[in-house]
Amino acid sequence: MATIVVEVMLKPEILDPQGQAVAAALPRLGFTFAKEVRQGKRFEISVDGTPTAEQLADIERAAQTLLSNPVIESFRVKVEG
Amino acid sequence: MATIVVEVMLKPEILDPQGQAVAAALPRLGFTFAKEVRQGKRFEISVDGTPTAEQLADIERAAQTLLSNPVIESFRVKVEG
Repeated sequence: MATIVVEVMLKPEILDPQGQAVAAALPRLGFTFAKEVRQGKRFEISVDGTPTAEQLADIERAAQTLLSNPVIESFRVKVEG
Repeated sequence: MATIVVEVMLKPEILDPQGQAVAAALPRLGFTFAKEVRQGKRFEISVDGTPTAEQLADIERAAQTLLSNPVIESFRVKVEG
């Protein structure tokens, strides 16, 4: 059983109000280290056995069509565990 | 400039309706490889220079208090780039 991870983040040129809210809240809690915070999504997809190249290509397509909005978001696919 | 990543996922025993919705949608789009899908959050926190041990400890505490709900979520902190 392997886990394929799809990480979806807003593109750098897209405003990220959630990330800005976190960045504004951190100093109020005493944490002053953050220059910028971006918030995105993480999908963990469990598959049987080792993922095949075909499965990874399928997941690329699923990430493009279902898991992300390619107009404003970019994504990365990786295999963990 | 380094990026500290905080990954927040629902604990395995917590129901994940968003992940289930994705898992249900994948076969409708012709993708039949997924056994389970879990959806979580990913925070990218930019800091100046290489993160110190103290900054990482701060981020652990920020993750516990602001970025995650420790009752239902678990998190991982890692340094990228």
